[in-house]
Amino acid sequence: MSCDTVWTHARLATMAADASAPYGAIEDGLVAARDGRIIWVGPRSQAPRFETRETVDCGGRWITPGLIDCHTHLVYGGDRAHEFELRLQGVSYEEIARAGGGILSTVKATRAADEAELFVSADRRLAALLAEGVTTVEIKSGYGLEQQAELKQLKVARRLGRERPVRVRTTFLGAHAVPPEFSGRSGDYTDLVAGPMLDAVAAEGLADAVDIFCEGIAFSPEETARVFAAAKAKGLPVKIHAEQLSNLGGAKLAAEHGAVSADHLEHLDEAGVIAMAGAGTVAVILPGAFYFLRETQKPPIALLRKHGVAIALATDANPGSSPLTSPLLVLNMACTLFRLTPEEALAGITRHAAKALGMQGEIGTLEPGKFCDLAIWDIERPAELAYRIGFNPLHARIWNGQ
Amino acid sequence: MSCDTVWTHARLATMAADASAPYGAIEDGLVAARDGRIIWVGPRSQAPRFETRETVDCGGRWITPGLIDCHTHLVYGGDRAHEFELRLQGVSYEEIARAGGGILSTVKATRAADEAELFVSADRRLAALLAEGVTTVEIKSGYGLEQQAELKQLKVARRLGRERPVRVRTTFLGAHAVPPEFSGRSGDYTDLVAGPMLDAVAAEGLADAVDIFCEGIAFSPEETARVFAAAKAKGLPVKIHAEQLSNLGGAKLAAEHGAVSADHLEHLDEAGVIAMAGAGTVAVILPGAFYFLRETQKPPIALLRKHGVAIALATDANPGSSPLTSPLLVLNMACTLFRLTPEEALAGITRHAAKALGMQGEIGTLEPGKFCDLAIWDIERPAELAYRIGFNPLHARIWNGQ
Ligand SMILES: [Zn+2]
Ligand SMILES: [Zn+2]
Repeated sequence: MSCDTVWTHARLATMAADASAPYGAIEDGLVAARDGRIIWVGPRSQAPRFETRETVDCGGRWITPGLIDCHTHLVYGGDRAHEFELRLQGVSYEEIARAGGGILSTVKATRAADEAELFVSADRRLAALLAEGVTTVEIKSGYGLEQQAELKQLKVARRLGRERPVRVRTTFLGAHAVPPEFSGRSGDYTDLVAGPMLDAVAAEGLADAVDIFCEGIAFSPEETARVFAAAKAKGLPVKIHAEQLSNLGGAKLAAEHGAVSADHLEHLDEAGVIAMAGAGTVAVILPGAFYFLRETQKPPIALLRKHGVAIALATDANPGSSPLTSPLLVLNMACTLFRLTPEEALAGITRHAAKALGMQGEIGTLEPGKFCDLAIWDIERPAELAYRIGFNPLHARIWNGQ
Repeated sequence: MSCDTVWTHARLATMAADASAPYGAIEDGLVAARDGRIIWVGPRSQAPRFETRETVDCGGRWITPGLIDCHTHLVYGGDRAHEFELRLQGVSYEEIARAGGGILSTVKATRAADEAELFVSADRRLAALLAEGVTTVEIKSGYGLEQQAELKQLKVARRLGRERPVRVRTTFLGAHAVPPEFSGRSGDYTDLVAGPMLDAVAAEGLADAVDIFCEGIAFSPEETARVFAAAKAKGLPVKIHAEQLSNLGGAKLAAEHGAVSADHLEHLDEAGVIAMAGAGTVAVILPGAFYFLRETQKPPIALLRKHGVAIALATDANPGSSPLTSPLLVLNMACTLFRLTPEEALAGITRHAAKALGMQGEIGTLEPGKFCDLAIWDIERPAELAYRIGFNPLHARIWNGQ
C-alpha cells in the first residue's frame, strides 16, 4: 500500500468510540497517512507493507488525536489585566463598569482595532494553543456587537485558518451581549442579529455555526429561539451558552432546535440533560471560567454520564472570564475541579470536541478516513496529560499529515 | 563607567522594597551589569555614560527580577499520574496506600533510581521553570528518607545548579515523612535525621538549609524543635512545612527558632502570624497544593498583611500534592484563589522569595550590587503576568548578567 508518511514504534491513544481498551490504546502501534488523511491505524504487527516516502520512528512516544479547542473567543481587542488588578485592589464591579470596564471595554477595544491588530494579538494566543497540540480551534465573534465589527472578527478568524497550520471553525455570536446602543432593548438587537447581521455573515460565508448567550444578563429563551430559527433558515448549525449563572432552560431549548452543543451548564437540571441526550447535543464544559470566576456550582457531571451525554472540554479563551490558553490545563482543571477521569478529559478535548463542532466524521480520533491530525507526546501514560500542571510534554504536532 | 551589558528602552519593575511607584516601576529604564552583577538601574535619562561591550534594546518590554521558586521538591523518582487516575476512577486512598501508593511510592521510586535517572527527570521539570523566567530555585530532599538516598537527591540538586544556568539552593528535608522502616517510631527516625543524617549532609556541604514537615501525619513540634536545634548547631538556616492540614503551632515554633520561612500555613492563627512578624520569618504560600488537594481553608492573607509578614509564593513542585511547574500559574492562583494583588504576587515570587531563602542581599530586586538575574517580558503591564493563565510571554531570561 502506498502512502506519504508512516509513524511507527508509537503507543497510540486512538480515542475511538468503540475501542475496548481504555483510551483505545494500542501499545506498539502504527499510523499511515496519505494526502493528509489517515489511511491505516493499528498494531504494527498487523500493518500491511507500506511504500512510504517517509517513516517517523516515534521511539515509544504516545500519539493522541490532535487536540480540539471547541469553544474560544480568541479574537478580541485589548485585554482586561488592568481590570483584574483593580478588582484585586478592592475596586467594585460597579465602579469598574462605570469606568467603562467589563465586557464593554472589550467591545470598545475590538471595535477600535483594525483587522491587522486583531490578527496579531489573536495569533499569539493561537500559538499558545498550537504549542500544546491543538490542531482544530473554534473561534467566536461576539465582541463587535455591530455588523462591521462582527464581520471583522470573523474575517480575522478565517485568516488565522488560512495562514496558520490549524483548522479554524468560526461561530457567529452576535448575540453575546446587548450592546450599549441597545441598552434595555434586547429584542430590537435580537432582530438585528437574526436579520441583517446574520444575512451579512451568511452572505460572506464567514460562519460555520451560530451561538447565543442565553442568560438573565444577556438574551431570553424567546430571543434565543428567534436566533436559532434564523440560523436554521440559513442552514447553519446552532450552539448555546447556557445555564452558566442560572437555569433558564436554554440547553433544553437548544436541544429542541437540534443544537450541536450547549456550553457552560453549571446550573443544568436533569430535564435539560435528558433533552440533550435525546438530541445528541454535546455538553461543553469550561472549567477555566468556573475557576476564574470562583464559581461554586459545578456542572452536573454525574447526570451527564447517567444519560450518556458526550462531554467536551474547551478553554473558553476570552479576556473577561477565562484568559486561558492552555488546553492541557483544561484537562487538569476538569479532573481536579469536576472529577472527570483523565480518559474522559482526553475524550472531551478530542472525540467529543469534534462532535461539538459537528466534525466527528473528520477529526477527533485516530481512525482511517479522518484527517491526519496528531499530537505526539513525551509521556509514559496518557493520564500524565491531565495530571501535570503547567508542563508541556508535546514532542511534535502533525496537521493534515504534516 | 565601564560595564559588560546595558539593557535599554525597557520598562522596569524593580520590585525594590522602598520604591514609591507600584512595582518600583521605571517607565523608560536602563540596567547595566558588570561581572554578573547589576551596577546601575534607573531612568535612562539619568544614566551615566557607559562604556559597554553590549547594548540590548528592549523595545519597551518589561524587565522584572528573575523569578525565584523558593519551595520545590523537584528531584524524585517516578510520578503519580497513575494514582491520580485511580483516584478519579473512584479507588479510595486506603486501597491506593495498601497497593503501595501515596508518598511511599515516590520514596520507593526515588530510592531505586540512580543519580543519572533522577537528574534527567528533574532536569525536564527544571526546564519548564526556566522557560517561564526562573533564575533561582530551591530544591528539597525528602523522598529518600534514608541517608544515602537523601544524599543522592541533594547531589542531583547540586548538579543541576552546576550544569544549568540557574542558582540552586538545596534544603535537607530528611524529616518529610516517617519512612516505613520506622513506622510508629517517628522519634527514633527524628534522632537519625537530627544526628547521623544531618552530620553526613553537613559534612558533604550538600544543604543550604534544613526543613521539616510538622503535622499530625508527620513530625510533632517536639521533634521539630530537635531538628531545628541540630541544624542550628551546624550553622544551617531552618524552614518548616507548617499548618497545612491542622494548627500545631509549627510556624510559631519555627519563628522562635529564627526560621527564614514557614510554608503552606492554611491553618495559621494570629499568634503564629505575630510570632513570624517578630522574627522576620517569611510566609511561603503554595496555591498549587491548595488547588490540587481541593482544600477549602485558605491561608490568613489579611492577618499576614496586617502584621507585615512578607508573603512569598512557590510552585511546591512535587508529585503528590502539586505536580506544578509553572511559576506564572502560581501568580494567577495566588490572585484568583487567595486574592493577592498582582503586585503582591510578583513580590512573592521575587523579593519575598529571596528573603525566604535568606538571599535578599543577592537577588529578588533590580538593585545595584545584586546578581543580574532578569526576566524580560512581552507584556504591556506587569499585572498581565498574573492575569493570564497558561500563557508564557517570556522574551528572554538573563542569569548572572548573561
Ligand atoms: Zn464562551
Ligand atoms: Zn513542600
